[in-house]
Amino acid sequence: MSLSTAHPKEVRERIRRGEWVRPTAGCAAGYVQANLVVLPRELAYDFLLFTHRNPRPCPLLEVTDPGSPEPVRVAPGADLRTDLPKYRVYRHGVLAEEVTDLLPLWRDDLVAFLLGCSFTFEAALLKAEVPVRHLEEGRNVPMYITNRPCDPAGLFEGPLVVSMRPIPPEKVARAAAVTARFPAVHGAPVHVGTPEALGIRDLDRPDFGDPVTIRPGEVPVFWACGVTPQAVAMAVKPPLMITHAPGHMFVTDLRDEALAVL
Amino acid sequence: MSLSTAHPKEVRERIRRGEWVRPTAGCAAGYVQANLVVLPRELAYDFLLFTHRNPRPCPLLEVTDPGSPEPVRVAPGADLRTDLPKYRVYRHGVLAEEVTDLLPLWRDDLVAFLLGCSFTFEAALLKAEVPVRHLEEGRNVPMYITNRPCDPAGLFEGPLVVSMRPIPPEKVARAAAVTARFPAVHGAPVHVGTPEALGIRDLDRPDFGDPVTIRPGEVPVFWACGVTPQAVAMAVKPPLMITHAPGHMFVTDLRDEALAVL
Repeated sequence: MSLSTAHPKEVRERIRRGEWVRPTAGCAAGYVQANLVVLPRELAYDFLLFTHRNPRPCPLLEVTDPGSPEPVRVAPGADLRTDLPKYRVYRHGVLAEEVTDLLPLWRDDLVAFLLGCSFTFEAALLKAEVPVRHLEEGRNVPMYITNRPCDPAGLFEGPLVVSMRPIPPEKVARAAAVTARFPAVHGAPVHVGTPEALGIRDLDRPDFGDPVTIRPGEVPVFWACGVTPQAVAMAVKPPLMITHAPGHMFVTDLRDEALAVL
Repeated sequence: MSLSTAHPKEVRERIRRGEWVRPTAGCAAGYVQANLVVLPRELAYDFLLFTHRNPRPCPLLEVTDPGSPEPVRVAPGADLRTDLPKYRVYRHGVLAEEVTDLLPLWRDDLVAFLLGCSFTFEAALLKAEVPVRHLEEGRNVPMYITNRPCDPAGLFEGPLVVSMRPIPPEKVARAAAVTARFPAVHGAPVHVGTPEALGIRDLDRPDFGDPVTIRPGEVPVFWACGVTPQAVAMAVKPPLMITHAPGHMFVTDLRDEALAVL
């Protein structure tokens, strides 16, 4: 069974019924998928301000009203408590459990943040004939903790995390231009070449994800990564924080092209 | 005395010393100017969320930390209590006074929001040889309250306010493209033609600002307007709200082109 040609609503319904407990890559092709971060209202101002101050790693698509599980702007009728295949529940900064729905955990003071995810710009890269190595090799994108601090906000602070894609030198400009059209899903690269300038010692040993092959002459190109806000939020050790499980994203009703700036 | 070629720092110093108590249009040409809204911390989350949900009328450039008058990102070293020529102080939604500095009023719980202003995109229009009628006629831009509600957030809600510039039909596309490059200062038009579809009955009777000449065949083009967040905040009647006085903006260190998306 593939859900690549399904409408987002159908994908979410199948997930809600427990029929799809797998990563969402490739589901509802052409539609935007989102990272989820759920925090108590008392931490929401600082986190919202953190996303504003760090839009490259934290491109914010929607914030729900306290207690409401419905993202009325990007997927009216959806329920963030049931419509992702798998969640991670952190208590005081420690992974407490993985669950497939949040109904027993939901509270009136919880605020859900949906943040853009790189699937959209990777689809744009492929359409522009820019290779995406980790997809070719069937791996997770390699991610690295950098020496660049994010701009702090209240309790939230921490280093920028980047993803890396090796790009042939004649296609670096195109890769930059294509992704710059999509600031709501991380946008243009934050850094091209020289991993050491970001404090990355060994591209073959990413902090998250898998290493990928870098062919002779290819340039490592770095984009701000959605792991950043999760890592930053976790460092605050909030009494309760809920995220999607890696790769198990929320599928919105927004078409990729609806996010393009020009 | 003109400050058009002065650096923003010099403009702010002169204002701070009380040597410039006039509108800032034309000061530090090529640099971004900003609208100011100051609110107590207890209203800051709802207002921040309102700006996120309504980025066209409320393009947010910076939010200060509670109690800090320094916008460290767009003008390090500046002081928002003294560096605007004139302020308006509203108490419970009523204009209480106009002042030239905020030192006696400042409190540890105040948060300052700086929002992009249309001077930047008007400069871009002029460079692209698109006429800007109210500048030609030495008037304020005409502004209209529309029938379109903003997306509410907590306590904050209200109608979208737009500004209007009449554009020759062969230049409408260029006007749209030029301003689309600057989402941080309202971006592309929200509406082209048909004022009645926005609930505007008579272009000659704007709700704010001055009417301008519309020549035969010219198309009224509407942009989201920075009066929107002020009007919306005022409607909540907060115990204390401070804004810039109309036209008396904050001059940042950001160059206009630094805000261009592509």
